[in-house]
Amino acid sequence: VIRRIAIVGGTHGNELTGVALVRDLEARPRITDGLEVRTLIGNPGAVEQCRRFVDRDLNRAFRPSELANPTLSDHESRRAREVAAELRPDGEPAVDFIVDLHTTTSNMGVSLLLASSHPLELQLCAAIMARVPSRVLLLGGLWGSELPYLKTLAPHSLAIEVGPIPQGVLRHDILEQTRAAVEATLAHFSRLAVTGTPPADSTTLAAFEAIENVAYPLDAAGRPLVVHRDLQDRDWQPLEADQPLFVAADGTEQKCLPEWVGLCPVFINEAAYYPDTAFVLTRQVELPIGSSD
Amino acid sequence: VIRRIAIVGGTHGNELTGVALVRDLEARPRITDGLEVRTLIGNPGAVEQCRRFVDRDLNRAFRPSELANPTLSDHESRRAREVAAELRPDGEPAVDFIVDLHTTTSNMGVSLLLASSHPLELQLCAAIMARVPSRVLLLGGLWGSELPYLKTLAPHSLAIEVGPIPQGVLRHDILEQTRAAVEATLAHFSRLAVTGTPPADSTTLAAFEAIENVAYPLDAAGRPLVVHRDLQDRDWQPLEADQPLFVAADGTEQKCLPEWVGLCPVFINEAAYYPDTAFVLTRQVELPIGSSD
Repeated sequence: VIRRIAIVGGTHGNELTGVALVRDLEARPRITDGLEVRTLIGNPGAVEQCRRFVDRDLNRAFRPSELANPTLSDHESRRAREVAAELRPDGEPAVDFIVDLHTTTSNMGVSLLLASSHPLELQLCAAIMARVPSRVLLLGGLWGSELPYLKTLAPHSLAIEVGPIPQGVLRHDILEQTRAAVEATLAHFSRLAVTGTPPADSTTLAAFEAIENVAYPLDAAGRPLVVHRDLQDRDWQPLEADQPLFVAADGTEQKCLPEWVGLCPVFINEAAYYPDTAFVLTRQVELPIGSSD
Repeated sequence: VIRRIAIVGGTHGNELTGVALVRDLEARPRITDGLEVRTLIGNPGAVEQCRRFVDRDLNRAFRPSELANPTLSDHESRRAREVAAELRPDGEPAVDFIVDLHTTTSNMGVSLLLASSHPLELQLCAAIMARVPSRVLLLGGLWGSELPYLKTLAPHSLAIEVGPIPQGVLRHDILEQTRAAVEATLAHFSRLAVTGTPPADSTTLAAFEAIENVAYPLDAAGRPLVVHRDLQDRDWQPLEADQPLFVAADGTEQKCLPEWVGLCPVFINEAAYYPDTAFVLTRQVELPIGSSD
């Protein structure tokens, strides 16, 4: 049973939505039956500067092997050890679940990002999707045996990533969508904690499984091509044969590879991934939700 | 007559559109009858870091009194003196006209920003508007006797500011819109330089005159309110009586002041102005274009 929940904002310092929601919760603490809700600003130093990070991406600094290495002295490695000491003192989880709040410049709507597909997490996502239009993205497969995310400090977790929104901006609509997903999360776990019975929203869950980061192609001068207007903003939509994906300065287009047809790109032209990853390819999957007993 | 034109991108280092267009022009120089076109990256140090600036806003560092002060040693003050030495060596303009390329996170479309309303500049704007859907914004009134903009190094100038686009992102559509406005500028001055006669596109020009920067209201805890969804993205649209403009964390709204009704906000929720300026109020004006002879 999930009783102790941490809601984290500002893991990336220029994603203001999570910071604002955490500060709202701190200003007017939320009483939720059966739950202990705590809040945390992930990277206050980066929030202060309104930058994604100071030295390196904090949300790539939580691999166990890195956390255990006290010689790493950059800003985020030190902050990662502080956050770990707070959320997992002496290696024991102080919280059962972490909700990490993010935004994206891509046209992804409300995305529910899972590092694993434990029944407890899939049940939560089904409950959120029943209340808030949203999609589930499984990211675990992009990494090796060690995941680098802050949320992996707890036994179970969810990242809520909402867009499109520029870095450094708060939008009323994005704020409300994110707040609704957080409220649905707390309502779900509160119901579970109080009644003890999981909801029967559905038996399978439609999800998207990340399979590959696609790099920007480079032109002859080594400059990245630009995401084509026929791809821009079409996150989650299956790629079509001959769909133009990139355009060079001279107007030449690069089209969809035959083996990508039917796969669904996400994080298309995300600012934080420029000029490395142009999009993440995913495959639609239908997951049995199962029982968490 | 305008013969020597500088096209500047990257005055703000995270506005990638201008940087890309300048690099395109450098890779494939454009031959334009009657014109000498040169290019410049405004703030290469900031472009390198994909930040608006390193120490301070370069596009606020060109007041004559500041340029003349060699004791200012921050990154942008030094860069401003370098740019001035290149575009106005020994105080004499090396170019007749500067086009400075910018982007905004606000929903402003193609905006033609003028520091003055010289007939030569108004004629250019009319010529651009005849080819590219765009609006003219007069910003001179927001400043005292000294304007701080890079473009004021030349006798005449235009900033082309296109949005909405996040900082740190290149979009095909925004790139094409900006390119079209640059092409229209060069075509106009080329025609003038070759034929000597200005076009008679129209005798008056519809424009928006900036009259006031409006600050974010603060809540009791000193946190800025959020731009209300009924204002977000409605740049250029006249404010209405009782229109909600801001919302607090507890849901209370702040409505349009009676004296603002009919005025048109721009730069609504612009990332670079957060958390200071929520929007810039403008008044619609009809300017006689006049003759530049």
